[in-house]
Amino acid sequence: MSPETIQLDHGSGGTAGYHLITQLFLPAFNNAILNKLDDSAQLTINNTRMAFSTDTFVVDPIFFPGGNIGDLAINGTVNDIAMSGATPLYLSVGMIIEEGFSGNFLHSIIQSMRQAAHKANVYVVTGDTKVMPAGKIDGIAINTSGIGIIEKDIHISAEHACVGDTVIISGTIADHGITIMTQRENLMIEGDIQSDTAALNGVVSQLIEHNCNIHVLRDPTRGGITAVLNEIARQSKVEIEINEQSIPIKPQIAACCELLGLDPFNIANEGKLIAFVPESEVEKVMTIFTQHPLTKDAAVIGQVISNNNPVVYLRTSIGGKRLLDMPIGDQLPRIC
Amino acid sequence: MSPETIQLDHGSGGTAGYHLITQLFLPAFNNAILNKLDDSAQLTINNTRMAFSTDTFVVDPIFFPGGNIGDLAINGTVNDIAMSGATPLYLSVGMIIEEGFSGNFLHSIIQSMRQAAHKANVYVVTGDTKVMPAGKIDGIAINTSGIGIIEKDIHISAEHACVGDTVIISGTIADHGITIMTQRENLMIEGDIQSDTAALNGVVSQLIEHNCNIHVLRDPTRGGITAVLNEIARQSKVEIEINEQSIPIKPQIAACCELLGLDPFNIANEGKLIAFVPESEVEKVMTIFTQHPLTKDAAVIGQVISNNNPVVYLRTSIGGKRLLDMPIGDQLPRIC
Repeated sequence: MSPETIQLDHGSGGTAGYHLITQLFLPAFNNAILNKLDDSAQLTINNTRMAFSTDTFVVDPIFFPGGNIGDLAINGTVNDIAMSGATPLYLSVGMIIEEGFSGNFLHSIIQSMRQAAHKANVYVVTGDTKVMPAGKIDGIAINTSGIGIIEKDIHISAEHACVGDTVIISGTIADHGITIMTQRENLMIEGDIQSDTAALNGVVSQLIEHNCNIHVLRDPTRGGITAVLNEIARQSKVEIEINEQSIPIKPQIAACCELLGLDPFNIANEGKLIAFVPESEVEKVMTIFTQHPLTKDAAVIGQVISNNNPVVYLRTSIGGKRLLDMPIGDQLPRIC
Repeated sequence: MSPETIQLDHGSGGTAGYHLITQLFLPAFNNAILNKLDDSAQLTINNTRMAFSTDTFVVDPIFFPGGNIGDLAINGTVNDIAMSGATPLYLSVGMIIEEGFSGNFLHSIIQSMRQAAHKANVYVVTGDTKVMPAGKIDGIAINTSGIGIIEKDIHISAEHACVGDTVIISGTIADHGITIMTQRENLMIEGDIQSDTAALNGVVSQLIEHNCNIHVLRDPTRGGITAVLNEIARQSKVEIEINEQSIPIKPQIAACCELLGLDPFNIANEGKLIAFVPESEVEKVMTIFTQHPLTKDAAVIGQVISNNNPVVYLRTSIGGKRLLDMPIGDQLPRIC
């Protein structure tokens, strides 16, 4: 069933977006690869296993502390590919630009993309640019799609969480989303607030090289860790319990969340991943994480406790337990 | 050098778009695959040759005689992949939708995408949906990216036109662009005017199966046959001569061009291709084309006459000869 009109929540990582996907897109394009709903599609072409992913970036503002729409677009697709354990290789860039957009801004964005691609060791090999008349698009939107190769016989998927798995987050949460929100609200905050946008394929490749047994990798972007944990619970049909106290968050980010009345668990990250691994792998994975600059604040935050119900519980800091339910939509649109 | 501001012409298939690509994108992302500037990037992964392409569709209106933005988006990327002689396999779909957009419209668009994908024998395996607040994007924009496999040892590229090659167009020109323009201008025209949007991978695969020796394949979309012929002239460093009288065009389309003061050679097509083949292959290629419903109006329209200058000449119907110069921009934006 189609909704009567498309609403902002349909573009979120929450329930409304999930409904749009499962009720409109999946029935239309129905195939085993798409239906897995992982961050990237896993394909096999001529016996070579590959990951293929796409993402469109409409972040507002387009420049923000820690990055801009350009490096965000490169890192976002690199990460989606890396989350299947693939080595990202090639990207496409599709731009829609508003007539009258500053040439200097475009130049800066492209330079950031160049640097981000270089850092992530990927090549932009094909592209497309459309210009829309003034007023028909707000500034610039960038789509990146990408291909990676899965070199080992590994099978990482949101469907593979198992009872007993340990849940690890690779660092502090909510940095990206809160940065965007403070920019948009013109809040002057003390302390270092900046987006965490970064490519995580380097650290993922270390996990793969060291033969870490990883069940699930996801990057908690739109909808934050809440959305991603709920998706994993649903796709693996498992019950997950998260310990509130163990989730790393910078004090200034926590303060902003308080100030803005936002739940940091629902806020987008752009340089973090969540890993589900068997208990036996935790030490090895955490050693790799804590030695890498992008994941040095990694923490064990919970575990898969049963396969009774596909839900996520939060063990709160005062000892209570509450359902960490999928948000309906995002607290603000155009976060990425 | 960046332009001061981005103008509509920068999104065209003409000179302005070419400058943006060569002055801003190529220096930044500089690599041998991108620098070829073919419709798709040709990659080799684990000894498997592949084609990878991306295209964003912002056509206005989104529904038009002969199709809508949905099947246009599927066919467009399928064709870009097929133009390297690859068999298109997998597509991604990235949508940006305006808040308040009709759910029924979205449903129709997705159904058209489903049908087009089915017809072209490709799978949509991954996607992304963003919603922008009302007024921040005009309706809907769709990016499709795709992967195909190049199964034989063929090397089709805009760089491979040779002196003596025959130039073939697969059917009538300007159908898509004129359809969009008459819709936008609310012109009521007698006769059948509709977009030619169609996936050409079926007929291309017949060329490949029959071992036709093809030097160049391009689909003349933005900027029409003028832009594509000039690109080929430039990339292969050859002089091309086209015979005006031999270019197939429907009388009602020619009449519209007269009425609107437009040059049909510069108008976008969405279901046509231009092939450069050695003279010895012409009969075989034309036999395949004329027997296929999508290319039955194919015609020989010119040849590569020298490698003196990278230019395109038009031998006019009254016996003159004029330069068919690259247009600066498109005659109307948002044609695809």
